[in-house]
This record gives sequence, C-alpha cells and structure tokens, in this order.
Amino acid sequence: MVDIATRVWNHKWKIDPIVRSLIDTDFYKLLMCQSVFRNKPDTQVTFSLINRSSAVPLARLIDEGELREQLEHIRSLSLSRGESTWLRGNTFYGKRQMFRSDFMEWFENLRLPPFHLERRDDQYELTFEGSWPEVMLWEIPALAVLMELRSRAVLDLMGKFELQVLYARAMTRVWEKIEQLREIPDLSIADFGTRRRHSYLWQDWCVQAMREGLGNAFTGTSNCKIAMQREVEAIGTNAHELPMVYAALAEDDAALARAPYEVLSDWHDEHEGNLRIILPDTYGTQGFLDNAPDWLAGWTGIRVDSGDPAAAARIAIDWWRDRGEDPAEKRVIFSDGLDVEKIRELHREFAGRVKVSFGWGTLLTNDFRGLVPDDALAPFSLVCKAVEANGRPTVKLSDNPNKAMGPAAEIDRYKLVFGVGPQDALKVVV
Amino acid sequence: MVDIATRVWNHKWKIDPIVRSLIDTDFYKLLMCQSVFRNKPDTQVTFSLINRSSAVPLARLIDEGELREQLEHIRSLSLSRGESTWLRGNTFYGKRQMFRSDFMEWFENLRLPPFHLERRDDQYELTFEGSWPEVMLWEIPALAVLMELRSRAVLDLMGKFELQVLYARAMTRVWEKIEQLREIPDLSIADFGTRRRHSYLWQDWCVQAMREGLGNAFTGTSNCKIAMQREVEAIGTNAHELPMVYAALAEDDAALARAPYEVLSDWHDEHEGNLRIILPDTYGTQGFLDNAPDWLAGWTGIRVDSGDPAAAARIAIDWWRDRGEDPAEKRVIFSDGLDVEKIRELHREFAGRVKVSFGWGTLLTNDFRGLVPDDALAPFSLVCKAVEANGRPTVKLSDNPNKAMGPAAEIDRYKLVFGVGPQDALKVVV
Repeated sequence: MVDIATRVWNHKWKIDPIVRSLIDTDFYKLLMCQSVFRNKPDTQVTFSLINRSSAVPLARLIDEGELREQLEHIRSLSLSRGESTWLRGNTFYGKRQMFRSDFMEWFENLRLPPFHLERRDDQYELTFEGSWPEVMLWEIPALAVLMELRSRAVLDLMGKFELQVLYARAMTRVWEKIEQLREIPDLSIADFGTRRRHSYLWQDWCVQAMREGLGNAFTGTSNCKIAMQREVEAIGTNAHELPMVYAALAEDDAALARAPYEVLSDWHDEHEGNLRIILPDTYGTQGFLDNAPDWLAGWTGIRVDSGDPAAAARIAIDWWRDRGEDPAEKRVIFSDGLDVEKIRELHREFAGRVKVSFGWGTLLTNDFRGLVPDDALAPFSLVCKAVEANGRPTVKLSDNPNKAMGPAAEIDRYKLVFGVGPQDALKVVV
Repeated sequence: MVDIATRVWNHKWKIDPIVRSLIDTDFYKLLMCQSVFRNKPDTQVTFSLINRSSAVPLARLIDEGELREQLEHIRSLSLSRGESTWLRGNTFYGKRQMFRSDFMEWFENLRLPPFHLERRDDQYELTFEGSWPEVMLWEIPALAVLMELRSRAVLDLMGKFELQVLYARAMTRVWEKIEQLREIPDLSIADFGTRRRHSYLWQDWCVQAMREGLGNAFTGTSNCKIAMQREVEAIGTNAHELPMVYAALAEDDAALARAPYEVLSDWHDEHEGNLRIILPDTYGTQGFLDNAPDWLAGWTGIRVDSGDPAAAARIAIDWWRDRGEDPAEKRVIFSDGLDVEKIRELHREFAGRVKVSFGWGTLLTNDFRGLVPDDALAPFSLVCKAVEANGRPTVKLSDNPNKAMGPAAEIDRYKLVFGVGPQDALKVVV
C-alpha cells in the first residue's frame, strides 16, 4: 500500500534539512556552553570554517544556495519541548540536573546567530561572530552540513542500485570492524563521529550497529539527538576551544601561562567524576602536565587527541606516578584518528595499566574510503574553530605541528610561554 | 508517519506466503506444459522431491505444519486476470500469442492437484501424483518453498542488525560479481535461479541488480512473475522431464531409443527460432547427437546442463560441422553450476566460435555461502523430478553419473540402449 499522506508530506519540504535539531550536536558542546554561559558570557568570538584538505574543492562540489538554505534552516531551529525535557530530566554520567535552570531557560530561547558565507575560489569562507555561548553552538552543525552536502553531491550522480550497494558495502565494513572490536576484552568505546559524519542517518545507523554488536562495551554517543532517540548515554567532556579562548583573553604572558589551568579550575567547580577529564595537548602535553597544579592530578583522567597517542599516555602515566597517584585508577580516553588497528594496539599496551576508553570518530561514521571512483566520498579534515576572542587571535599548538593554528608570531610566543620544544609532525588523516 | 492500514493488513495474513502466484515459476515449465497439454494430456505422472544433499536435515530445520500451510496456500492459487493478460498479450522471443487459447483457458481454471507429505527421519517425502500437465507445475513452487523455509529457519535466529548486515554482504557479493561480468564483452546472460533461490524477494533484487548493472547483456529471467513485474524478458525452452517421461512411456528398447527425438519432433511442430534449443544430455550428449536426425542440426542451438561444459560444447561444434552447419551461427547456452569464473572461462573459449549464452542459476540467486556460522545458508542440491509415468519408472543419465537417477536395472538398460560408455563423475555443487 502506498502511504499517500507520507508522500505528500515529504513533497511539502522546501529542502531536505540536514540538521533538524539544536541538540543534533556533541554533548560536550552543551557542557562547555553552560560553563561559558556562567564564566565568560560576554566574550565576543569569531568561529571560522577551516578545510585542512584543500584538495577537496568544497565550493565546486556544493552549491552556495543549497548551503545557505541549510544554514538558514539551522537558524530557524529552537529547542523542542521534548528535547528540553530530556536535557533537564536525564541522568548524565549518573548525575541528574547536569544542566542548571538558568542555562536551560537561556537555551530554550536561543536561536543561532547569523553566519557570514562567501566563496573564495574553490573553498567557502564561513564565519560566525557574536557572544561565545551562542556562536560556539554553530561548530558541529556547520561541519555536519558541509560534510553531508558534500556526500549528497557525490550520491546525486549515482543510480538506485549503485546507492544500495554503496551502503551495503559501507554497512559490511562497519560491521566487520565491530566484529573485530568484539574480540577485545573489556573494551570501552563511544561514538565521537558527529562532526565529520557521512550523514545523520548514517551516524544513527552506526550507533545502533555499535549497540547491537558491542553490547556494554559500547558506552554511548557524543550526539545528543541520537542519544535521546536511541536511549543510549550521551558522552563527552570538554575541548580545545576553552583553553584557546581563555588564552587569547590573557593580558600578558604570565596570564597566558595560567590560562589553561584557569579553564580547568572553572570546570572543577562545576563538574566531578567522569567529567573531570584533562585535555592537556592544546599547548603541548608534556609542559602542561609538568606545570600543572597538584589538584589536577586528582582528576579522573585524561583525553589524548593529537600526536603519538601512546607517547602521550606514557607521559600521563609517569606524571600521575610523580604526583603520587595510581595510574591504574585513572582513565585515558583516546580520541584522535582512531580505527580498529590503532584501537587494538593502544588497548594492548594500556589495558590494565590505566582504564582505557576510546572515542571513535570519523572512521566510524564516515569510512567510505575506496567505495566510489576517485575516492570522492573519503572523509577529509574539516574543522570549525574559534579564531578570535575579544579581537585577539586564538592559537592552538597541540602535540602535532600539522594541527597547529594561529598567526605565526603568536604561535612562536605561545611556544615560548609554554616551553614547547621540537615536535614530530604527523599526517592528519581526519 | 506510521501507515496503520498497512500494518493492520500485514497482521491479517495467517501465513507469510512464499509463492503468491502460479506464474512465480520458470517460463519453460509453461512452454513444456502447453506441449504436454497438447501431446500427452492423459499421462499419469508422479513427481518427487529429492534432496541430493542429505547432510541438510530438512525435516529438522523446517516445521511440517508450516510446510503444509505453504503448500496448501499454493493449491489455493489461480491465475489472476493480469497474469493471464500478460501471458496472452506479451511477446516472448519476439513472438505474440505464444500460448494458445485452449491452453490458456485450461490454465485459467487450473488449481494445483493434491500433494503427499510425510516425514522420513530427517527428510521429507513430498510427492505429487496426477495428470502430467497439472503435476508438472508443482516442481518449481515446491522447490522454492522448501528453499525459502530453510532460509527462514536460519534467519529466524538472527537479530535485526545481523540480518541487515547479512543482506548487505550478500548484495555486495552479487554486485561484485556483476561488476566482474561487466568486463566480459558481448556477454549474454539470464537469470535461471528460481528453483533454488534464497527467497522470492532476493531473486527479485538480483534480477533488478542484473538489469541495472549489465544493461543489454542481461537478457532476462526464467521467472514469469518477476519478468512481468519488472518488465524484462521471460527466458527458457525445455527440460529433461520431457525426454524422461517420453522414454518411460516407450513400449520397448526400439521405442526407447526413438523417444528423445520424438520429444523434439513434437517441439519442432510447435516452436521455432530461439525456442528450438536442444537439451542433449538426458541420456548422454555424444550418443544423442551421433544418432540424431538431420533436421535437428538445423535447430538454433544447444543447452549444456551437466558434465564438463567445455567438452559438451566441443562435441556440439564438431557435430554441427559434421552435419554441414556453421557453428558460428549456433547458440550454446551454458546453465550448469555457473559462477563468474566459470562464465569467464567458457566465454573465453567459445565466444566467436559459437553464440554463447549463460543461464545463471543458484549461485546468482542463492550465494549465501560463508555468510553465517556453520554455513547454514549455503545452497544445496534439491530437485523435484518426474519419477514415474503411467506406472513406469523414469530414468535420467546425464553427462555426470552423480546426477543420474532411476532404478539401477533401468539405468543399465538405458545405458545399453543409448550406448553410454564410461563417464567422469563430477561433484554436484548446486
């Protein structure tokens, strides 16, 4: 039977929206947003899209009008009653009322601020300006829209069966990865793949496949909408944008040196347990830990997001021992460029020595490598970052110089302030 | 939106029928049925299910009650108006009104005769008795029901995602085969996989994939229902049951020796062109051709269905040359146990020397080998054959002694009459 009503309803859509909800975003964005809303609500920031894979000519692949429509659609979104109820009523990391009332009231009234879109040769310049708590919520939907419009541009050229077989192959691949992961004892892994996903529906499928295939080893998804819909845990803590903006706001070098710890001091006041996860690499992991105050060693764990992950984990283990902490009680979350082989390798080295977790991103939700001619669906390295705060440029160094960003002079100053020596350059896959 | 009406409608089905139409059968069954209806309408025959893969314990896998329900459902079927219109109005092999009015009137009133079902240890004894034109139409649906109930028994134990991934893998496999076939120039291939298909929906998918992937190289399907639904050609000519029953009816050895040619003489009167395809292996290809009347050499081609296919094709080529025919004008249809490698090999040897076609069966529509534990979905060799005609046993020798059937004494007599010497035993895969 043809469901005429559904067909007619579908025809009524002016566009097929990619992001249909303000909580189709990463959980840590909301945690950070609440923190920013309390501690730095008036900071003016600029976020900007950066395509680190300049070989992917986004402006040739994606129609500007379509992109604009998708972004405008996001600006029309507001928190639904059910979404608000879920955020207010849900247990996150075992804690109720994670989100305070004043934040929720603000969030319920939020519409995302304007965007600025311009084509520059084969790339788009896409920037967002305004108050930090508002602008920061653009990051994930903006990335998801660009990634999915690029997917659609390629899929548009394919026949019905080619499409079916494409997804059959992609499903087979994900499932085979899951079957390999199933063999790792005491695995703990979450989906971190919202920002560079192939599409919303695909991420949703991957999450369900992970749940079905891994059972309790699958700890949840960073995507709030999917967590809500599929009744799994929402996962995440904090990201580089906090120290980057705090650092940009610092008045002098001494304040700059303190900035990354101030961030975590603010965070410490707000959160406990599994949310107290250090992200130490913004200005070099080694220096950050060497100079860290003792109370940080009492935190639950660390997230490793750039450089050689095993090296970073070893540095953290040594640091905990130095500070009189038992590494076996600490959690290490790996989240950079993971795939099955790397997960297996890191698990082999660190299981037992620390509590190991994995935040699996792009190669879970967008591994379409090799599935179409010219590898036109391969994931690529697109980010959307805070580039300015109150008129000053932000800087990120990380443990991989290929991930560094900011004006060259500022990068040099930061390296000096944070005592960052020579670094190994590693290829950024995704 | 939930389509409540469809859901409710689905709940009303007492069973989920496997065969939903009398033309969900092979086209050549209808062609042969019309011939039998004209030439031997009163012959009493017994058809019987034979599981050549005794390691597959059908009666342990398939519930007897369910099997009975499915078979009873088939007995409730009659030709629908649209099906009748399609058979009467369609062009088959470029010819209109392939089916005569008297036959169509009979067919429109047909209900399939009773069946006899009994469990014997781990197998079912399933037989059909009655007049030849009626009983013969049981063969394909009976096989399809058993194959699909066996599939369902295995699928019943699988989770939702396992199922999705199973089909993703099977689709990927079929599509990869199609991609390999696409590289063969001037390929001509049809679906012959109804009888041992994984399921109806799967065969339907395979046919659509073949059409999409191969274009004109895909010449059609043997399945009338799918041919009608998908608007592709219905393909087929004649099968072993004609010479087997004609031979069983022979009064003495001289009549027996003539029987296979009488079949084709009757066929000659009815059909021309692409339907004049010799199936020479029932009692040994070499002997059949050596003793064939000259008018047979004028036929369009030959179908190779047992033994070493290249050897049989070479025999046919020599025979045509001997009889003053140009082999390059003749069609050779390979239809036994084909898969891509074999197809490629045969095409390489015979393309250009003869017109080559392929009737691809079980390894198109049921290649689930290796996709579930214990290979529980691997295809197996199930047949449903005429075993008796007017009280006398039938015999088949073929070019592979592993495919021979009939009482031992009769097999010996047939070998003598048809001058069949030593044969190479080849493993029967499907």
